[in-house]
Parts: sequence; structure tokens; C-alpha cells
Amino acid sequence: MTTTHQFPEDRVHYTWDKDPQPVLTINSGDQVEFSTREVADDQFNKDSVTEDIARLDWARVYPLAGPVEIRDAEPGDTLEIEIVKLVPGSWGWMSILPGLGLLPEEFPEAYLRTFDLSDGQFIHFNDNIKVPITPFLGTMGVGPQNAEGQAIMPPGTFGGNMDTRHLTVGTKLYLPVQVAGAMFSCGDAHAAQGDGEVCVSAVECPMQASLKFRLIKGKTIPAPQFQTAGALTPKVDHKGFYGTTGVGPDLMEAARDAIRAMVEHISENYEMDPKDAYLLSSACVDLKISEIVDAGQYIVSALLPLAVFTEE
Amino acid sequence: MTTTHQFPEDRVHYTWDKDPQPVLTINSGDQVEFSTREVADDQFNKDSVTEDIARLDWARVYPLAGPVEIRDAEPGDTLEIEIVKLVPGSWGWMSILPGLGLLPEEFPEAYLRTFDLSDGQFIHFNDNIKVPITPFLGTMGVGPQNAEGQAIMPPGTFGGNMDTRHLTVGTKLYLPVQVAGAMFSCGDAHAAQGDGEVCVSAVECPMQASLKFRLIKGKTIPAPQFQTAGALTPKVDHKGFYGTTGVGPDLMEAARDAIRAMVEHISENYEMDPKDAYLLSSACVDLKISEIVDAGQYIVSALLPLAVFTEE
Repeated sequence: MTTTHQFPEDRVHYTWDKDPQPVLTINSGDQVEFSTREVADDQFNKDSVTEDIARLDWARVYPLAGPVEIRDAEPGDTLEIEIVKLVPGSWGWMSILPGLGLLPEEFPEAYLRTFDLSDGQFIHFNDNIKVPITPFLGTMGVGPQNAEGQAIMPPGTFGGNMDTRHLTVGTKLYLPVQVAGAMFSCGDAHAAQGDGEVCVSAVECPMQASLKFRLIKGKTIPAPQFQTAGALTPKVDHKGFYGTTGVGPDLMEAARDAIRAMVEHISENYEMDPKDAYLLSSACVDLKISEIVDAGQYIVSALLPLAVFTEE
Repeated sequence: MTTTHQFPEDRVHYTWDKDPQPVLTINSGDQVEFSTREVADDQFNKDSVTEDIARLDWARVYPLAGPVEIRDAEPGDTLEIEIVKLVPGSWGWMSILPGLGLLPEEFPEAYLRTFDLSDGQFIHFNDNIKVPITPFLGTMGVGPQNAEGQAIMPPGTFGGNMDTRHLTVGTKLYLPVQVAGAMFSCGDAHAAQGDGEVCVSAVECPMQASLKFRLIKGKTIPAPQFQTAGALTPKVDHKGFYGTTGVGPDLMEAARDAIRAMVEHISENYEMDPKDAYLLSSACVDLKISEIVDAGQYIVSALLPLAVFTEE
């Protein structure tokens, strides 16, 4: 029988710190139910508009539910987090934030869109484009060692803001414990995101999450690892993918070139404003390193699932 | 009705050059059947061993079948190549080549393995590990502009040695024409490869390939693009994937960390020599850019399909 705990909704933290007071202490094998706020800490709602971005209090971005202390966890152990259940809230948002994202020069202006998620199935980009809801927690991390007011945004070997789309229901995430008690926290939930999260936001949303914890004593891993329960993109595989590429000596520039070509491809072929094509890329286009060994010229591919276009 | 041409088997070239003499001139809409040699130009055979690497004549590596001239093709056009049929030969090889690959310091010594592909279904790594044969041409390119004795190994915006695993049967590849007549060539066939081709070789093999060409006048693309016919990894999706990650400010180092962790994971969990684990990673592990926007700390994931393990 699994012991299940409710994590109190009002307990969040906005930085990583050493020696935090745990909100909850559990045993290995226990499950915790979290209710996480959208990443802007309820500063946005379903009626928010682009102008609201300028009023953001950035100190309140990344409210994390936690920390949860796991009894007997010590540095050098591994914490397994099984993603048991994820239920997104009824709405979500995406944005372009000036200076951030993979193409800040091409997209210098703020932009915000909200989406109705209440059908539980799709993010409706427009009448002809539906991205399947495929939820995960953008941020899951153990407490980083020696943290002191450490910003949440950069991830690390402790996990944290991993923004890794494959951490969906059924997946087991493994994190290297860095502090006594592990001190796990989570938040920043996404209703959907492509590999890369290229525009800097996914479909950000509130989330009900059930996570089951298991402590693996004496097993040490260098960085997060995970095991998925099945196919990676089963909801969109059937119609194939359109790929753009970037080729060159620098993986970052190659990724930029691939996404530039993808934004252009989507804009031209589906009559979409480039800003929306950039958001759509962040929501469902996957960046892959196709080739990383050929005489200093590497290829990054950006793959768009054609199943999101209902009229194709 | 499609006009089909046989490309003469004895006509290969080893560099990209400007103004080459076409071996074959075809019309848009025609199909060409190629028989390509393994990438070492028949210097290896199914009985080759590691010591044979030292005897390689490197000037004969990358024998390409071509060029094929497409009538009316001009710089600024796009050439569509539909991959109609691919039939690998009865054997293949993989190798570690000193100084090359993603982890040259960890794997400084040469290593060669050959594989029987004659069942047409699997590459048998050992009694318990079978990688499904999923063939593609590692090199497909139009003639690069201003080429003069240009090495084949580095790919470019003209395509060439793309080593992009998703160019399988049913996929349409789009290449930007850079010289009059397009001057398409191909070779370097692979029986299987993961995204990245991390050890520097895929499962290299001879190949029978049928490609159908269509010229798209006046459409210009900046670099290769492609459209797949369906799911990307349908033969291995059903059992899920094990992922390792690299986290840090440099995508290349993050990819190295992810593959280092993957080689260790495979070696430890499946009792495999690290050299073979490195080859297996090159044959079936996919590198993905999970996150490329979070405060200068990026995540590259390496995903291993668990379906290759027959005892799992």
C-alpha cells in the first residue's frame, strides 16, 4: 500500500537555497500530490494580454512546490521520481519575452497568447491547428549543493528547470541527490512543448501532479536520467514530420538556422504570422542532433509533426 | 509512366568538384537506380578485422555514385529526391577511428566489427541485442558551388554527407540547387544509425537504392529540408527509451556528457565492453536538444530504445 501525501498549495519557493526547511518529510515509496501554479505565479490568467508582460514581477516567476525531504537520502544516492498522474488546468499561455529564446534578434517584441485547455485533448492554435495536450512538469529537481538564492531558470546536474518534454506520465526520472534529504521541488508545468522549447515558453499552465518517490541508496549518476514508458510522440507520429536543418561548425547556430527555416516554412505554408509560427515551434517542433561527428560540420534538424494540421 | 535509369556501378567520385562531367542526364520526374559501395570503397569485407583499418587508403573513402545531371536545374531551384527503395547488402561494418567521433579521448584505439545483415531484419550485436535494420543513404548531395577537390566528409547547405537517419524509404529530401544541372551524387549507405552517429561510423553497408527526382523551379531553401512518411522510430517505439543527459553551457560538451553517461549505462547494465556500447550508441541512440533557452544552461538527451534488448 502506498502512503499518499497532499502537498500544501500555499507553500512555494522562488530560489534554490541550502539547508531549506522541508515542507513535507516522506519515506521512500511514498507518493505526493502537488497542485502547481503556472510559472508566472498566477500573475497571468486566461484573459491576459501582451501588455501584461511589462507588469510582471520577475521575482515571482518559477514558484516551486517544495521542498519535500526524503528520509535517509544522502549525497551520492539517486532519487527516482515516477510520474504517476498529470492533469493540466483549464487554460495555458505562451509568450515571446524580449531578449530570451533561441531567436531574440528576429523576435524583439513581447507577445502573449492564452489558450483554452478545457477539452483536455488539444491546444487550439487556430481553426486548423491543434497540438495534442502532452503534459509534463518543466521543473523537477533535488536541492542543488551549495545553493544560495540560486535562480530557478538555469537547470543543472541536479535537474531543476529541465524543460525536457519526455518526462510525461509513466516516465521515471532519476536525479542525483546532492544534499541530505534530497529536498525535491517541482513546478513550471507545461501542457505541451517540443524538444528545445525554442521561443522560451512552452504552453504554461497550472497542474495537478502525482509523483511517487523511491530512494536508490548507493547508486550515483552524473546528471539526470529517465526511462519512458513507451513511444516519445505517439499522438502525432501517424502523419509524418517536416524537417528543416541547420548545417555548420556550431551547434547553437545550426539550431538557430533550423528554427529560422522552420518558422519561415510554417509561416509560408500555413499562412501564419511568424510570431505564432515561433510559438507553434516551441509547442511541438523537436530539435535533434542529426550528425555531430563529420569533419567539424554538424547538422541540427527541427521536426514538425504534420498531425497538428487538421486540414493536411 | 516513370522513366527509370540504371546508374553504372563502376562510376564513382571521391571529391566534390565544380563543372564535373555528368555520368547520367535525366529529366525531372525520372527515377534512378543506384548500387552504392560501402563507404570504404570495398576495402573492407565481411571478414575484415581491426588491423585492416591501418591499411585503409583514405583517398578512396566516400566513393559517391554520380553525378546525375537534372535538365533545366539552376542555382536557386530546389531538387526533391524521393527515397523509393533501399535494400542493404548482406553485411555491414562499424568502427572506432582514432581521433574521430564524439569521444576520441575515451576511445583512442581503432576497433572494427562486421555484422551479418542477411536476414534483412536485424543487426545482431550479440545474442541478446538486435538493432532493427532501418536503411538510409548517409550521403546525398547536389554539387556544392565553387567546389574544387572538396572533401566529402563535411556536409554543407548542399546536403552531402548529412548522416541524417530520418531519410528512410518514403521520405522526400529537398536540396538547394547550387550549380547548373544540380549534379546529384549519393553513397555512404547505412543499415542503421542513431541521431548523431556518435562513434563516427554507422552500420556501413553496400546498398541498392531507387531515387526519384523532381525539380522545383524557383523555390529556394537555405539548407536541406525533408518530409518523412510516418513515425520516426516505429520499429523500436513500443518498449520505451532510456535517457541520459548532459547539462551545461555548451551543446557539444553536453552531448559528450550525455553519450559518456549512455556508454556507462549500457556497459554496466548489459555487461558490454565500452567499445561495443559506443558502437551500439552510434547505431541506435538518438541525441536530442531537450532545452536550448534556459539562462545559458542547455540540456542534450541521449535516448536508447529498449526494444533492441531481446531479454528485457
